[in-house]
Amino acid sequence: MQKNKILKVDEGEILDIEIEEDLLKANKELASVNRKTFDLNNIKSVNVMGAIGSGKTSIIQWLIKELKNKYKIAVIAGDVTTGIDAERIKEAGAESIQINTGRGCHLDALMIRKAIKKLNLKEINLLFIENVGNLICPADFPLGTHLNMVVVSVTEGPYMIIKHPFIIKEADIVVINKIDLADQMEVNVNKLVKDVGRINSSAKVVTTSVKEGIGLNGLIEALKL
Amino acid sequence: MQKNKILKVDEGEILDIEIEEDLLKANKELASVNRKTFDLNNIKSVNVMGAIGSGKTSIIQWLIKELKNKYKIAVIAGDVTTGIDAERIKEAGAESIQINTGRGCHLDALMIRKAIKKLNLKEINLLFIENVGNLICPADFPLGTHLNMVVVSVTEGPYMIIKHPFIIKEADIVVINKIDLADQMEVNVNKLVKDVGRINSSAKVVTTSVKEGIGLNGLIEALKL
Repeated sequence: MQKNKILKVDEGEILDIEIEEDLLKANKELASVNRKTFDLNNIKSVNVMGAIGSGKTSIIQWLIKELKNKYKIAVIAGDVTTGIDAERIKEAGAESIQINTGRGCHLDALMIRKAIKKLNLKEINLLFIENVGNLICPADFPLGTHLNMVVVSVTEGPYMIIKHPFIIKEADIVVINKIDLADQMEVNVNKLVKDVGRINSSAKVVTTSVKEGIGLNGLIEALKL
Repeated sequence: MQKNKILKVDEGEILDIEIEEDLLKANKELASVNRKTFDLNNIKSVNVMGAIGSGKTSIIQWLIKELKNKYKIAVIAGDVTTGIDAERIKEAGAESIQINTGRGCHLDALMIRKAIKKLNLKEINLLFIENVGNLICPADFPLGTHLNMVVVSVTEGPYMIIKHPFIIKEADIVVINKIDLADQMEVNVNKLVKDVGRINSSAKVVTTSVKEGIGLNGLIEALKL
């Protein structure tokens, strides 16, 4: 992992040292603690990952509007610098907690641990966690959620699945969004579905267009909600 | 920085320790060494950053086709797992070296140091370095290039600039691409241009559509090529 690498320049010699940290191990332990907290409180939890502009927030808003009479929903929204997504969630009608990661490219289990302490866990039974926008870093940091959902958009071009096998392998559900733009973007949605299948044959694939209202029922079914 | 953080779970206590590493300092030193190598060999170098599907490779292809009779061009293409981009570069007619970062979310100066050793530096005078696809990590790792160029696409939605101030601050040039889709995406390009100006008033902003052939001359001018 790049994040565990140290470079040293020493008297003209370049040393390239890989160091082993307990970062991933500790994160995994904390993720288990988070999972226990969710289970004890009968909260179903979903880690929503995807690149900038793939539609993560829009999809969560869409689910909130559809499900808010059936579930008591909260959202933990991770973002590098702004509170825009948390505001959009609130407008849709759910409780929302913002985590700003600054220069960090993913949420981790400790951030979630701290965030859930701010929630009244007795008052919710469905939790969406919106991860930081990219398809690389979140793959390495499980948060303890029951489901991992990856959202991609056809506007990201034809290669976003095969370029990111690590995150696709971690996914229970892959949402291919903005399919109304597929022809215009010259992206073959069936090919993307097959790409997912080759990397992770047990992932459920749902094709959606939030804008056109396509795929919401399929997504709710995949989430078992 | 998240990547310099260690989490420990110790007898039920969660310790959240920030550790200071010499990673960024060493990277900066190596970046200076790279810059000297470029200068000694009269090579103009450009670090091309941007999210997955923003159009980094397409823009580099476009520049190669336009400039290959004027410059001897090489490309170092960083990608997490595939060699797709390097192949696309070769098709456009330039020498190309692939760096796979695996789970790493950015290139660093050492990777570039190693890659340029494989190039015949006397045979090139323009080098594009295509960074790994996201708007977060590459901001912290200068590579020693003369110019930093950030490519965003209107398909990433209305917030990609204001959500990523760190990378925009590092940019000499910001390319707003796929402007032919702005109306359909309900994204206001003028607003994005203003967002850049508020974060980094010295960055040049170029609006492009590779598909429609809009903005190439402006981009070449901004790059002083």
